Amino acid sequence: MTTPSRRDLANAIRFLAIDAVQAANSGHPGMPMGMADIAEVLWNDYLRHNPANPKWFDRDRFILSNGHGSMLQYALLHLSGYPLPIEELKNFRQLESMTPGHPENFMTPGVETTTGPLGQGFANAVGMALAEKLLAQRYNKPDLTVVDHRTWVFMGDGCLMEGISHEAASLAGTWGLHKLVAFWDDNRISIDGDTAGWFTDDTPARFEAYGWNVIRGVDGHDSASIKAAIEQALRSIDKPTLICCRTTIGFGSPNKAGKESSHGAPLGKDEVAATRDALGWRHGAFEIPDEIYAGWRRDDGAAREAEWNRRVEAYERQYPELAAELRRRVRGELPADFAAAAQAYIDKLQAEGPAVASRKASQMAIETFAPLLPELVGGSADLAHSNLTLWKASKSVASDDPDANYVYYGVREFAMTAISNGLALHGGFIPFDATFLVFSDYARNAVRMSALMNAHAIHVYTHDSIGLGEDGPTHQPVEHLASLRYIPHNDVWRPCDAVESAVAWKAAIERRDGPSCLVFSRQNLPHQPRDARQLADVARGGYVLRDSAGTPEIILIATGSEVGLAMQAAERLGDKARVVSMPSTDVFDRQDAAYRESVLPKACRKRVAIEAGVSDFWRKYVGLDGAVVGIDRFGASAPAEKLFPHFGFTVERVVAVARALD
Amino acid sequence: MTTPSRRDLANAIRFLAIDAVQAANSGHPGMPMGMADIAEVLWNDYLRHNPANPKWFDRDRFILSNGHGSMLQYALLHLSGYPLPIEELKNFRQLESMTPGHPENFMTPGVETTTGPLGQGFANAVGMALAEKLLAQRYNKPDLTVVDHRTWVFMGDGCLMEGISHEAASLAGTWGLHKLVAFWDDNRISIDGDTAGWFTDDTPARFEAYGWNVIRGVDGHDSASIKAAIEQALRSIDKPTLICCRTTIGFGSPNKAGKESSHGAPLGKDEVAATRDALGWRHGAFEIPDEIYAGWRRDDGAAREAEWNRRVEAYERQYPELAAELRRRVRGELPADFAAAAQAYIDKLQAEGPAVASRKASQMAIETFAPLLPELVGGSADLAHSNLTLWKASKSVASDDPDANYVYYGVREFAMTAISNGLALHGGFIPFDATFLVFSDYARNAVRMSALMNAHAIHVYTHDSIGLGEDGPTHQPVEHLASLRYIPHNDVWRPCDAVESAVAWKAAIERRDGPSCLVFSRQNLPHQPRDARQLADVARGGYVLRDSAGTPEIILIATGSEVGLAMQAAERLGDKARVVSMPSTDVFDRQDAAYRESVLPKACRKRVAIEAGVSDFWRKYVGLDGAVVGIDRFGASAPAEKLFPHFGFTVERVVAVARALD
Repeated sequence: MTTPSRRDLANAIRFLAIDAVQAANSGHPGMPMGMADIAEVLWNDYLRHNPANPKWFDRDRFILSNGHGSMLQYALLHLSGYPLPIEELKNFRQLESMTPGHPENFMTPGVETTTGPLGQGFANAVGMALAEKLLAQRYNKPDLTVVDHRTWVFMGDGCLMEGISHEAASLAGTWGLHKLVAFWDDNRISIDGDTAGWFTDDTPARFEAYGWNVIRGVDGHDSASIKAAIEQALRSIDKPTLICCRTTIGFGSPNKAGKESSHGAPLGKDEVAATRDALGWRHGAFEIPDEIYAGWRRDDGAAREAEWNRRVEAYERQYPELAAELRRRVRGELPADFAAAAQAYIDKLQAEGPAVASRKASQMAIETFAPLLPELVGGSADLAHSNLTLWKASKSVASDDPDANYVYYGVREFAMTAISNGLALHGGFIPFDATFLVFSDYARNAVRMSALMNAHAIHVYTHDSIGLGEDGPTHQPVEHLASLRYIPHNDVWRPCDAVESAVAWKAAIERRDGPSCLVFSRQNLPHQPRDARQLADVARGGYVLRDSAGTPEIILIATGSEVGLAMQAAERLGDKARVVSMPSTDVFDRQDAAYRESVLPKACRKRVAIEAGVSDFWRKYVGLDGAVVGIDRFGASAPAEKLFPHFGFTVERVVAVARALD
Repeated sequence: MTTPSRRDLANAIRFLAIDAVQAANSGHPGMPMGMADIAEVLWNDYLRHNPANPKWFDRDRFILSNGHGSMLQYALLHLSGYPLPIEELKNFRQLESMTPGHPENFMTPGVETTTGPLGQGFANAVGMALAEKLLAQRYNKPDLTVVDHRTWVFMGDGCLMEGISHEAASLAGTWGLHKLVAFWDDNRISIDGDTAGWFTDDTPARFEAYGWNVIRGVDGHDSASIKAAIEQALRSIDKPTLICCRTTIGFGSPNKAGKESSHGAPLGKDEVAATRDALGWRHGAFEIPDEIYAGWRRDDGAAREAEWNRRVEAYERQYPELAAELRRRVRGELPADFAAAAQAYIDKLQAEGPAVASRKASQMAIETFAPLLPELVGGSADLAHSNLTLWKASKSVASDDPDANYVYYGVREFAMTAISNGLALHGGFIPFDATFLVFSDYARNAVRMSALMNAHAIHVYTHDSIGLGEDGPTHQPVEHLASLRYIPHNDVWRPCDAVESAVAWKAAIERRDGPSCLVFSRQNLPHQPRDARQLADVARGGYVLRDSAGTPEIILIATGSEVGLAMQAAERLGDKARVVSMPSTDVFDRQDAAYRESVLPKACRKRVAIEAGVSDFWRKYVGLDGAVVGIDRFGASAPAEKLFPHFGFTVERVVAVARALD
């Protein structure tokens, strides 16, 4: 081989995938074999990136939404010169390797997002393309462009069957994200076999119905056809593009091409050999000739980044304030004065003591913090006036306003949350999204993905219990608080008043390496008095809000709307009763043992937890000796003031439960 | 008024809705006012039902997917003579009334499914239409039709924005459910205002892309236009129909029609009066003149049901076996010999002791039980060969085979689960669906709805822990077992071997009034020995699998793949250690106190729970004095045999944790 053909370059992907899956005895060779030709053209001729600096800010984003084909991405990263050595490919799917079964953004340089849960990568990509649009319209000047990159996404039939593809594609169309280009791997095979039995959509027509630029009938194994399609996509000035690529899964395998048997299992030794013969690949496993590497490493990424740096320097001279803001946002740092300003607001609230619904307190916090944070972009799934997510300076992202910062998501909780993840992972944004707490269910796996990916996203959930009243059990969360708390690395806050609400918002904004769920009431909540020490301790997730005289004989632990109830009950129980407000069990559990002991002394086993949600969650604090006033059945439709007594949330009952521990 | 006009009849709906929302000071008047004319035509001219017997089996099903417009349905039920007195409408949204905020199938005769969580009612309707198709193709004979009804569904913009609308519509199109007719309430208003900012889909084109019969441009306030559209829908012989009705939300309100202000709040006293004037409605609140009742109660439902009964009697004479089977299925009863046959199979398994993956044991149970249960209809979200949900007699429901019983759902977990709910609520079926446990997230609110609606649906979740290995943390459930257990009225089973797997399947099949989640391993699990008493006690959810000599000094509690580990650890710990296998905490918690005490005696506080999931869930059994061997972080990509030690699931660690309690 002297000058490798495009097919040779693509075959390098194929055999790295084939051989890695074979070595791991686990994985998905079919998709990399099927999409290798598309990937080769995109990466070698169009993708603007710098393999030497995977974090270069103005790089194009490449998303593998059909993440089971992870070896495609690892092969691309390796071949094009990212810091992903061949040894890592040999360790595909092994413990602590950089090449896990599905692409993980926190494991592998160049992997923009974690995929595998189908359809979400596509929605992340919509979020990234939205991020680029918003940064471009804020920072670019007629004479100086500092943000200009594309988002490319690969997706398979599975992504397109998922409902989230509908939500995300609809929004991308509405927003006219013309720098978003999606490649559909139309191979007509999913795990169960020929998709004719369960996937009969006219997908091109569907995407046209969303206002997309659809390029039909591309031969996904013909480089010229792929190039022509991409050129056409680049000309789109107001619509995202779907390139429909007809491909053969497992392309090149004499006996498994076009069959589901190539999808999710090694080809097997004999078939690997047969595929080598069929494709004329004369090299051993993991052997890539220098010519092939040379063919892949013609990228001019370093020069491109240097050129961008020069532009940014010029920009800094002309627009120093905007440049400083952009630099700060790219670094993911908050304004230097944010913490102090936020604390001043919290102190003011403590002094003024407004008794409002915590959803209102949330809106007040947004109103206060948003002017400090151009990176804050928020929205709601068609519940703006219920979630109270609009603030005075809200401007729709559907506009080209440089201050655009609000997303009207429509009724699309799942895509909303995955788009938040995309905004967060892109960088330059702290996104928040909002819906009723019960409908966090619709977005649940995207919340999980926020946590897994260390995405700095904020999920706002209002109407947090039976306290929402008449809408009834379909709208009343019961198990949701506990279930969200159980997602690893996810911080859930359920504040009891305006002060705790502001602290929760501050914590969520400052938590750079993970998501927070902020859970707010529909109904008004009383203000709680606190001294300076108590006020400071709110940020520790749990603290003594009302202390006992001397050692506590009984401890009432409560969150959110039940803290007021606990305080009233403690009054009745007398001066040996302590009340612990626990707005975030996640944060409290991370405190040192001495602090936790100071709040919940081991010696005191008389403990009652009070929360309008499933009771068993609280056994971690009250044990077998304590008691819980909770709700272990579905709610009901009635005014909230009728529901709380109906479900046993009265001072009398809490007192009785506490006394029964004697 | 002598003979009321169609508009008069529709106005009765409008004012019942207006007045009930006003009385409750809560609710959604805009949708009933907007869809009243459509509903009037459908109910008075087409809906085949018998208001005197809401449970008549061959009735048409009417689903209000935009369930916030519940007063539309209550008005329809009341006006057409269902047992829903006017007093109940006056008590709209009050505690224990028959008229909750959103329609609830368990509260109101004539309400087929519980709606409010948008889009799911539509998917339930697809399930019901599938149920009708399957029953018709099994039981109808060329000379005798015993199953012949339609499914009508109302849906709004919100339903259509939700991703589940994509999944459900795609399947309905693939299956050609021509007796399904959906009415789109195209009012261009959602809660946040004019949908132009966030809902720009060409919905008719989208549904045509799914293979639907789409009727465009219907004036939803013109009875003749509505009638013509329905007539056209009735002529469809191979496609479901979408009727696109242009309507005005809050129709008739001089100041709020066409505005979001009519959507979710009372019109207000003055506007109610103004609307009365505008629509010429001269009657007081909740006053319906006799002429209006007469106009609504012209239904010939009783005659229709009587005629059907005669047909069924003739059918019984000609096809006695099929008739008996249909009757039994309509009653929701299992075959008389099912329990004994299932028990015999369980006994046989206990004797033979196969050591297989519990997903394989699940497939063996399906293979054994399905031939006894023509009502069992199962499927998987494109993971048939991983979930192991196919059995020898599986036949795709996409066919017209009388034995069709298997659903290739494609990658559509949410619609799959909501379709299961529709199949279950329709009656005549015990549906099961399947995906990986981690992707229960995608379907989560539909699982909740199974439980809320008392739907007899079975959700099969395989690949239940890090034991799935290389696919990594995106595919490895951690918090899912606990989160599913926290859904009220949901029974979760995680069996430890083939015997427990069969018991779980038997329990799920026999649980007529609620759903079960059956959670199975990817990897092989050892068989556990049991005596007759232990074997019987598996069905109690938790039981002593290995007892101590005398009073236990330490109790190990485990589920699923960790039971084998607990048994090995107990061997090391000696004869004072008891092992409790706890396949279903939900079922165990329902046992009487004496039984629970016999399994977990209060006196023994040295308890260790072992489960490859979040640890805090188990504090309800081990308290503050015990310990949990669990996983409180995300998994990792590696072979399972590497992961279990990596995450601390070894005999040595369990023994060490147990001994540390000394």
